Amino acid sequence: MSELEILERLRARARPFPRSGVRLGIGDDCAIFAARKGEELLITTDLLLEGVHFERGSHPPATLGRKALARALSDIAAMGGQARLCLVSLAAPRWAGRGFIDGFFRGLLGLASRYKVTLAGGDLTQSEALACDVVVCGAVERGGALTRSGARAGDRIYVSGVLGGSALGLRTRRGAAWRRHAAPEPRLELGALLRRLGATAAIDLSDGLALDLHRLAKASGVAASVHLPLPVFPGASFEEVLHGGEDYELLFTVRPGVVVPEAHGGVPLTCIGAMRRGRPGALELFGRPLAPVGWDPFRKRDR
Amino acid sequence: MSELEILERLRARARPFPRSGVRLGIGDDCAIFAARKGEELLITTDLLLEGVHFERGSHPPATLGRKALARALSDIAAMGGQARLCLVSLAAPRWAGRGFIDGFFRGLLGLASRYKVTLAGGDLTQSEALACDVVVCGAVERGGALTRSGARAGDRIYVSGVLGGSALGLRTRRGAAWRRHAAPEPRLELGALLRRLGATAAIDLSDGLALDLHRLAKASGVAASVHLPLPVFPGASFEEVLHGGEDYELLFTVRPGVVVPEAHGGVPLTCIGAMRRGRPGALELFGRPLAPVGWDPFRKRDR
Repeated sequence: MSELEILERLRARARPFPRSGVRLGIGDDCAIFAARKGEELLITTDLLLEGVHFERGSHPPATLGRKALARALSDIAAMGGQARLCLVSLAAPRWAGRGFIDGFFRGLLGLASRYKVTLAGGDLTQSEALACDVVVCGAVERGGALTRSGARAGDRIYVSGVLGGSALGLRTRRGAAWRRHAAPEPRLELGALLRRLGATAAIDLSDGLALDLHRLAKASGVAASVHLPLPVFPGASFEEVLHGGEDYELLFTVRPGVVVPEAHGGVPLTCIGAMRRGRPGALELFGRPLAPVGWDPFRKRDR
Repeated sequence: MSELEILERLRARARPFPRSGVRLGIGDDCAIFAARKGEELLITTDLLLEGVHFERGSHPPATLGRKALARALSDIAAMGGQARLCLVSLAAPRWAGRGFIDGFFRGLLGLASRYKVTLAGGDLTQSEALACDVVVCGAVERGGALTRSGARAGDRIYVSGVLGGSALGLRTRRGAAWRRHAAPEPRLELGALLRRLGATAAIDLSDGLALDLHRLAKASGVAASVHLPLPVFPGASFEEVLHGGEDYELLFTVRPGVVVPEAHGGVPLTCIGAMRRGRPGALELFGRPLAPVGWDPFRKRDR
């Protein structure tokens, strides 16, 4: 297969969704996109690298393609946006057969179609190890995006879902925890709900509760205190709950009076603490300091 | 250095340019961008991989960072847009020292500042080999983007600059040709001129004249005939002129009556032939068939 043949096949499977705003998709130097009136754009990009984010042979190609997109969609969810289009740069590994690229895009396009995200372009090449970058462009009402920086002292801290499952899955490679790790669900509907609820800040849990809560608190200029029971994935260790990455749940804050439903679309929403005055980014867990430690590619090598 | 420290340093060097439309840059889950009224967006993404697009040690980090951005800017130029923001995903190689990331971004931000492109986000990690993806988001008047598909039979075919220099530089690793290879210039001002001139189609020469002309002709549903002297980089072989990649010049077409200046900003503009009726994408060179061969990562391994 040549690059041209692969692109032709993809193009046939990637027609723009109606009302996506995609004016020109695969096949030119750039994608062309028009937001609707009163909207602004959210743009995010996520690398997925063999040897860094996954090991060769650990995921079937369709799972890998789906995950590459899910990670970027999670960033759109955290800001309360609607995902509209994606661009996918893929360096297919020479170790994989020709079915690999087909499988990768089948998984990716399956998830894309669920959220009506148009595959609008990208880049294809080959290399020794798989390298993939997914760009997602979303839209949000002008001025309405949820950011990390809006939390105030007194705000309640919530998380969606249960935590630590992805790290547990990475350790045990089995069952529901492994599926959590391999096939995370971007919380796009929840992000939209959080905007309607008037959440003050949000972030997705990509690098662990402690590190991501630290980031949110620091960006907001406040400290955070976790003093309520955490929602734990069955079997996950406390370390995995606090510092395990890739849960892709949403961590968010609301003003004290706001009524948050107990669950949304089957995903529990749990209050775990409150923001408070203090050194920006400082964390407390049941009254004791909590280190903002999580997955840092420049410090650790454990996945 | 941790990821957090690197990001803090970058953020200080990457404040949004005035009127860039960037509402929120580095430091959240997504960048927020608003186009101006009557504009639509151009989005492009480009992978730059060690072992595929360059060899370890062949480029100083600043040159590499500059080139990673230049390649993506070239796609915006080809569609006649103004580049507004970029997102940079970098997997820094473990073989490089801590100065590497600084150098890489120094080179990238130097070029970005020349064209007032705001670095608005990205992703940082580490891996065995360098992997980088650059996303550029540009803007263009609604409906005004130059595409590959607008050329008609009778249109004149032009190229900017001189061809084959990058491939020659890759072969000889010396002098002006090497600089051409290592530090290509995105033709953004020229792209804007082509829109004003009413060019019917355009593409950037990333994979060689033959292959990229084939792409333009095929997208336009016409054939192409090259029958005028080609502008040759001094010392480049005919093979390098026709099939060498990475010149990053613009190839474009205009209606027969249009007066194209001989040069723009010191870059010559040369008429090399005309589009004609025929099998879409078919090429002719001085009356003989020309194969649409160029750099295809799925077929060749020569760089």
